[in-house]
Amino acid sequence: MTRYEPTPDSISYTFGGKPAIARVKPGEPFELRTLDCYGGAVRDVTDLPSEVCTFPYLNPVTGPFHVEGAEPGDTLAVHVLELTPAAPYGFSSTFPHFGALTSTAHTATLQPPLEERVWRYDVDLRNKTVRYAARNSGLVVDLPLAPMLGTAGVAPAGGEVRATLVPDAHGGNMDTPLLGAATTLYLGVNVPGALLAVGDGHARQGDGEACGVAVEIAMDVTLVVDVIKGVPTQWPRLETDAALMSAGVARPLEDAYRIGQVDLVAHVADLLGLDTLDAYQLVSQAGTSAVGNVCDPNYVMVASIAKQYLGGAEAYGGAHARLRRG
Amino acid sequence: MTRYEPTPDSISYTFGGKPAIARVKPGEPFELRTLDCYGGAVRDVTDLPSEVCTFPYLNPVTGPFHVEGAEPGDTLAVHVLELTPAAPYGFSSTFPHFGALTSTAHTATLQPPLEERVWRYDVDLRNKTVRYAARNSGLVVDLPLAPMLGTAGVAPAGGEVRATLVPDAHGGNMDTPLLGAATTLYLGVNVPGALLAVGDGHARQGDGEACGVAVEIAMDVTLVVDVIKGVPTQWPRLETDAALMSAGVARPLEDAYRIGQVDLVAHVADLLGLDTLDAYQLVSQAGTSAVGNVCDPNYVMVASIAKQYLGGAEAYGGAHARLRRG
Amino acid sequence: MTRYEPTPDSISYTFGGKPAIARVKPGEPFELRTLDCYGGAVRDVTDLPSEVCTFPYLNPVTGPFHVEGAEPGDTLAVHVLELTPAAPYGFSSTFPHFGALTSTAHTATLQPPLEERVWRYDVDLRNKTVRYAARNSGLVVDLPLAPMLGTAGVAPAGGEVRATLVPDAHGGNMDTPLLGAATTLYLGVNVPGALLAVGDGHARQGDGEACGVAVEIAMDVTLVVDVIKGVPTQWPRLETDAALMSAGVARPLEDAYRIGQVDLVAHVADLLGLDTLDAYQLVSQAGTSAVGNVCDPNYVMVASIAKQYLGGAEAYGGAHARLRRG
Amino acid sequence: MTRYEPTPDSISYTFGGKPAIARVKPGEPFELRTLDCYGGAVRDVTDLPSEVCTFPYLNPVTGPFHVEGAEPGDTLAVHVLELTPAAPYGFSSTFPHFGALTSTAHTATLQPPLEERVWRYDVDLRNKTVRYAARNSGLVVDLPLAPMLGTAGVAPAGGEVRATLVPDAHGGNMDTPLLGAATTLYLGVNVPGALLAVGDGHARQGDGEACGVAVEIAMDVTLVVDVIKGVPTQWPRLETDAALMSAGVARPLEDAYRIGQVDLVAHVADLLGLDTLDAYQLVSQAGTSAVGNVCDPNYVMVASIAKQYLGGAEAYGGAHARLRRG
Repeated sequence: MTRYEPTPDSISYTFGGKPAIARVKPGEPFELRTLDCYGGAVRDVTDLPSEVCTFPYLNPVTGPFHVEGAEPGDTLAVHVLELTPAAPYGFSSTFPHFGALTSTAHTATLQPPLEERVWRYDVDLRNKTVRYAARNSGLVVDLPLAPMLGTAGVAPAGGEVRATLVPDAHGGNMDTPLLGAATTLYLGVNVPGALLAVGDGHARQGDGEACGVAVEIAMDVTLVVDVIKGVPTQWPRLETDAALMSAGVARPLEDAYRIGQVDLVAHVADLLGLDTLDAYQLVSQAGTSAVGNVCDPNYVMVASIAKQYLGGAEAYGGAHARLRRG
Repeated sequence: MTRYEPTPDSISYTFGGKPAIARVKPGEPFELRTLDCYGGAVRDVTDLPSEVCTFPYLNPVTGPFHVEGAEPGDTLAVHVLELTPAAPYGFSSTFPHFGALTSTAHTATLQPPLEERVWRYDVDLRNKTVRYAARNSGLVVDLPLAPMLGTAGVAPAGGEVRATLVPDAHGGNMDTPLLGAATTLYLGVNVPGALLAVGDGHARQGDGEACGVAVEIAMDVTLVVDVIKGVPTQWPRLETDAALMSAGVARPLEDAYRIGQVDLVAHVADLLGLDTLDAYQLVSQAGTSAVGNVCDPNYVMVASIAKQYLGGAEAYGGAHARLRRG
Repeated sequence: MTRYEPTPDSISYTFGGKPAIARVKPGEPFELRTLDCYGGAVRDVTDLPSEVCTFPYLNPVTGPFHVEGAEPGDTLAVHVLELTPAAPYGFSSTFPHFGALTSTAHTATLQPPLEERVWRYDVDLRNKTVRYAARNSGLVVDLPLAPMLGTAGVAPAGGEVRATLVPDAHGGNMDTPLLGAATTLYLGVNVPGALLAVGDGHARQGDGEACGVAVEIAMDVTLVVDVIKGVPTQWPRLETDAALMSAGVARPLEDAYRIGQVDLVAHVADLLGLDTLDAYQLVSQAGTSAVGNVCDPNYVMVASIAKQYLGGAEAYGGAHARLRRG
Repeated sequence: MTRYEPTPDSISYTFGGKPAIARVKPGEPFELRTLDCYGGAVRDVTDLPSEVCTFPYLNPVTGPFHVEGAEPGDTLAVHVLELTPAAPYGFSSTFPHFGALTSTAHTATLQPPLEERVWRYDVDLRNKTVRYAARNSGLVVDLPLAPMLGTAGVAPAGGEVRATLVPDAHGGNMDTPLLGAATTLYLGVNVPGALLAVGDGHARQGDGEACGVAVEIAMDVTLVVDVIKGVPTQWPRLETDAALMSAGVARPLEDAYRIGQVDLVAHVADLLGLDTLDAYQLVSQAGTSAVGNVCDPNYVMVASIAKQYLGGAEAYGGAHARLRRG
């Protein structure tokens, strides 16, 4: 299996605006390593991100990859076959005026920032845990290891180039714990080859990424992609064995909710042959909504419905099931 | 066990502004029946709510109950011992310019409302299902029965009287699926006796109550309450055997998220003796966030942390465990 | 002319929930004094509001007044004939976790509050100025005196009782500089007699009341009211000699904008006999939008259109012009 | 004076991502023509924008211009010397699911879009009016001609490329009526030469651009620029002879308000040597806030303070006064 390392040439700080580092074929799995969101610059709890990192060199993604056959108007299916933390520990931190429970550059106030502090999490791959250790007390808590990709996207529409910190219709920094192994991500293709890139591995993350930073860690990633020809996708969708999902990406948070739910209603109406109101009703009672991030330039909420309620209907011609087999 | 029926005298359309219908004692379970949010006026799919219901006679609650010993500055613990749908079917509907996926009186646009439509759900208590039936196709889908109370609250602070449609710091129409049997709700007491009332039973509800209306049904409710003396509670908190929760109630939705998370951080800091930043970090990685409603006058998001991460710390002096035993 | 003083019996901290202190007749001017929002408790820059004031005894209004002939479904027109500051100086302040440029109880963060500080403004009625004096430097700046009523409202609909700090469809704490002398405020009547009350005089205020507190001052107020029978009003409207206005009251701020604009479009369509889209277009190019408050429990934006563009059309049967004559 | 025409080579649909079409020198005025936001494709009220325009070819800007001497970390001052409509009429329209008073792609609902309709405005340069003509009635209303530039910006930071429809920290599609002749716009420089481009002329616009579209018209524009070396600017600022302003650009609208006010407080504190709280207080009472757009991907609110309250303090070393002289 071809493997891609995150060298200075093969990482990117934007979606769009950079030529592909390689071509990948639908159906052929490939491996890559991602750097953590600090680009590896935080190596100890004394390394304050605002001192060791430099904007805009944050949140590097590995790629982009040109997906053979992907053309504007198609949908790219990205299936995560495997995610393995590639370091013995991850780091989280606060960061001045960044996060959900502080004023920020956008929710601007006159208050000084919270203290900047770093936490190291030891990863135990055997027991599948990460260990929280308080900085100002002796408390340690073992939390389940739950690897995910914070960032996965393609080149945006309309010739735009977006920082990898930004989530939007092209995917990007969605920071949803739902993007783990065995999940398929569907993204609309805007340029030839789609120009897929991924990064920002998290050993785990709480809902909303409240402090703005998950348990950040380098990650070994195995992906396989497919191209659904002639089928557009407006907002990111996800699929697991159990559920179909639509991600809403916007501010305020209710707009992220609305986008995801409206997209899921349309998807369910289409799959089940329901009119809009009947689909609205089914999603209203059977649907769930998971919080992605409430800290990035756009917030993310993921609308979801269990596939058991969809009577065997197949999204995107069964792409998930095919890719799931590797 | 004393039982209260929803007679014209024993229901209310406001929190506050109405004398108690009865006194209840801490530790003594009691039963009551709640009407559905339509006050029982929707009896068939041809009964359009905007025609058979009249504002402000919507969302009746049963009560209020004077809780003996509850004084301003205390916390009222309301434990739901049992919830049983009291009708063979529930109803959901759209309602003109109400719901999350339509413009509303507040998110005002110039567009006409969506069609008003009613759905009937047959309840199967044995198999614990409710049956969705599309109106414009033959599709039926069985969904799990998951009874909950949409509305539970006390008299508000500052002499306010709020419609039962409104959720806020006093509880009220929070519409969170988390308020089911075996859950304890903690509310700050604002007036002598607290003046607890509950209603708005749902046979089930999706996250956010997207169409504005859950599977509405009359409900038999068994409650037991306790008073935690001298301990104030600012925002509603919930507790189950597995988790501690804080509800944020506000618009926009990110403020509901912020309120809940900030309250949970403070609670965790207090319980574990952590400083604010260490608690912020723990909640950021271990916490979850569930969507209550995204359709009522205030939205609700519930921040949650598993009690397994709290090392046996007990909230409110172990009130939940005590009440759980009935 | 009858005059009402703000005695303990004649002030209120809520809209609704209190019997009328007097009856007033349409067309007969009356005078009253309002206390400042601190209830007069801040008398020097060393009086910190959080120490000298006690929730919920904030923002007292004088009233309520029973307006003869006002019935639910009517509109109450309240015309401000005169506003005169009734003290030689006013006070502004910061207040912990209150204001637009700080985190608050609703936009909750983990940051400590800003410093609480009080400023005294000397009022010069002859030169029509108020004098800003920096606390930590010698700077003084004379600003135009621009008296307004921060709070004016009626008993809410649906049996609700709302704190005088809250603005909503019943008016209340709208905090818009547009509510000065020579302005008519239209409010929907929800209870017999309407139960009008006013307070919260400001010697002047910036747009949005950024720090949460204007130049607060006791005020002598002369009002005259009228009742427009059988004409309901959903959201507060205002009228001056020059403009027709609709206030939107909501969170987030774009909803306040939407409400005001939608209401103004409907009003213009009605007055000019335009269809909705033609009125939308006219308001889009000719309309303005003024910020009221961005700090209260609901935010306020006021949509406005110059009457010169309305070809002599008269709102509410010419009520403003009639009342303007006193 | 050098003049630039909007040829296919000299227009752009993005900020960033395109090489300069020319170099301009600080202090040397230059002229250019801008196309209207439709690129001239709407020529009659029967030309529906959704049919005659094609995404992403909307809102063309003329440029970009390389400003000699501008380096990252500097501030670019762009002074508008003259704005003259370059066509005998302008057009406005609704557009499906775009605008403030309709659901949109982001404030997503299940409602169908409003009708798409086009209005033609005749421009009378002599009388300085534009004429509104209702489509479904005979009403005509003359409104004041008030030319402005809807879009003016530089290449964004961090290597981003943004559609010209988007406003953000780099300026862009701010759609504020305040950007007319005799105004100076200050923008932070992110790339060598700044790469300034302008477009989207409006013959006039209401506050918020409620229907999403102003009176769109080709415009003759005379600009002169300056570079303030070594002085960064985080958010767009504006200056007229009468006022200093800070633009907030964000969603939700209160964040746009907060950003602008916080930036203005910092600016005032800096100019007057006040501490933050004393500046906050002065801006709270003396400041105003104008609504830019409430329809674009980010909303805009402009905080403003009259220069008469600033005691002769000069922003950016008096750049506005210098440029004002041409």
